[in-house]
Amino acid sequence: MFYGAGDVRWQERPDPTIELPTDAIVRVVATCVCGSDLWSWRGKRPPGDPRPIGHEFVGVVEEPGKGVTTLSEGDFVIAPFSICDNTCVNCRHGITTSCVQAQWWCAQDPDGRQLDGGQGQYVRVPLADGTLVKTPGLPDPAQIPALLALSDVLPTGHHAALAAGVGPGKTVAVVGDGAVGLCAVRAAVRLGADRVIAFSSHTDRQEIATRFGADDIVSERGEDGAAAVRDLLADQGADCVLECVGTESAMNQAVATVRPGGKIGYVGAPVGGSQLPIGKMFSGNIFVGGGVAPARSYIPELLTEVLAGTLDTSAIFDLRLPMDQVAEAYAAMDERRSVKTLLWP
Amino acid sequence: MFYGAGDVRWQERPDPTIELPTDAIVRVVATCVCGSDLWSWRGKRPPGDPRPIGHEFVGVVEEPGKGVTTLSEGDFVIAPFSICDNTCVNCRHGITTSCVQAQWWCAQDPDGRQLDGGQGQYVRVPLADGTLVKTPGLPDPAQIPALLALSDVLPTGHHAALAAGVGPGKTVAVVGDGAVGLCAVRAAVRLGADRVIAFSSHTDRQEIATRFGADDIVSERGEDGAAAVRDLLADQGADCVLECVGTESAMNQAVATVRPGGKIGYVGAPVGGSQLPIGKMFSGNIFVGGGVAPARSYIPELLTEVLAGTLDTSAIFDLRLPMDQVAEAYAAMDERRSVKTLLWP
Repeated sequence: MFYGAGDVRWQERPDPTIELPTDAIVRVVATCVCGSDLWSWRGKRPPGDPRPIGHEFVGVVEEPGKGVTTLSEGDFVIAPFSICDNTCVNCRHGITTSCVQAQWWCAQDPDGRQLDGGQGQYVRVPLADGTLVKTPGLPDPAQIPALLALSDVLPTGHHAALAAGVGPGKTVAVVGDGAVGLCAVRAAVRLGADRVIAFSSHTDRQEIATRFGADDIVSERGEDGAAAVRDLLADQGADCVLECVGTESAMNQAVATVRPGGKIGYVGAPVGGSQLPIGKMFSGNIFVGGGVAPARSYIPELLTEVLAGTLDTSAIFDLRLPMDQVAEAYAAMDERRSVKTLLWP
Repeated sequence: MFYGAGDVRWQERPDPTIELPTDAIVRVVATCVCGSDLWSWRGKRPPGDPRPIGHEFVGVVEEPGKGVTTLSEGDFVIAPFSICDNTCVNCRHGITTSCVQAQWWCAQDPDGRQLDGGQGQYVRVPLADGTLVKTPGLPDPAQIPALLALSDVLPTGHHAALAAGVGPGKTVAVVGDGAVGLCAVRAAVRLGADRVIAFSSHTDRQEIATRFGADDIVSERGEDGAAAVRDLLADQGADCVLECVGTESAMNQAVATVRPGGKIGYVGAPVGGSQLPIGKMFSGNIFVGGGVAPARSYIPELLTEVLAGTLDTSAIFDLRLPMDQVAEAYAAMDERRSVKTLLWP
């Protein structure tokens, strides 16, 4: 439960029950803390009454509602970070985050029901048929961290890469060395980029970026960082820049790093009134796309490779704690002692 | 010559001469007033010393410099609205407006030489081999207005359509019924859009939009306009919106009109501190691309169709005046008595 800045507590809550026939109750097997949860922890978002927190989890279906047709008790499922029916016009366009029935973990549904958070032992999942993606059979427990990355950070990095037009022949720079930025490196490599450059000034994160396939690491920031990228790319900016932070300085880094006519894919939730530099975008024909990643749309494709063992971003979970140490998980990530902390019940 | 708000004068200037071997002197056959010239006329741009104005013209090569290799005296040429070498890395990427040697009509070159404007009888064209596109032989005089549209407005409309991903199967809405907006309608039809909706509240412009292939006209603006588009599109926003104005209200219209995950192509020069609504872009996964159109890159492809008579946007020139009536041309466009005014020497 989130109480306020710097105050997240592990406490007893009533077990959730089916409230609508399309719900399912899921027993959480693993969950984690998101960079965006840290905005709450740091007091950058308005506090309110104590509320559940967390929006990334994998687990086992404990009880499907009577209207649930695709899931059975015992199915292992991945929950994306937003809730959708996966059938509406926006879902059919692949933008499940704009589902006409979209709901968000920890918020209220249109009828005022409080939704659970992913950081807990049990979760009531609305629109379970649309929202959850089940694995074929129970996965190897060793794969659970890699599967958990499918809840948010891997599809989000993938979304940044797609939005920036990453593909064969492209040069790519990634702004942000958090879990999403590192997954964006992996996604860009997977999509066949010619060269992937990661901005990172932390040795531990540089190592993960390199393990995920980054060709080069740039530790400078600002204009020096952009110049370092141009030095690596025969005096040109990058074709594609993946902005995985959400701050104005990160977007400015992206704009400074991309070549004229290049594309920026951005997935960092804009925080603190950040603005896009429209003048530079206009004069340089810089394309900006992305947004809140429609993870649900991407999970099936990525899941196949995760289960095959060819797409493993579990290295981002460099700290793994029991769930009753959730406060320590937040502190470790806030103090950059951990890239991303996995919690198990 | 532009003197200040509301004050453009036809006056005698010395004929230009070759200053650099890569220059060419072009005798203007037709020129016109751009919507962006009106920002100067309306006093929205800082005044300065009297200066040449105009950046769209077609003409005949009077004298090529000694270093010019592709043009000869007597060639008919189309001048795009920016000057480029057409060989540098940015030009090779198709972004000729970001040429490493880019220059701009009416401005100064890197050595402080004043450039001519297109609204005059003769123009010194720097980097003539890169900048100018010649026609095969002299065109039929009746085609000159259609050829003049290649200087700016038709490639600019085309750029908006490409940036928004227009193609077969796409629904398109065009914001702005000026010359660029109308050309954007034509460009979207040419690229095979399924359905093209033009925003316009002026009968004369609605007629041109329809002649250019618009399927529907929406005369409402703001949320009513966006709702009218959704009514036409089975309750969905448009896949692609072409923003051809450059004001904040036009961009807001575009954002309100596009569907989640849709793309906005924008080519209206941002004036008056307009901002992109990053929050709505992020939550709706709305892509924004475009900018100052690299007309030079698009002219050869479009020229072929203009000469074949299959791509004729000359209807935008609904007023045609001799060049000494340039002041009336500005007034007519400012007062919306003319969509775009053609001037002949």
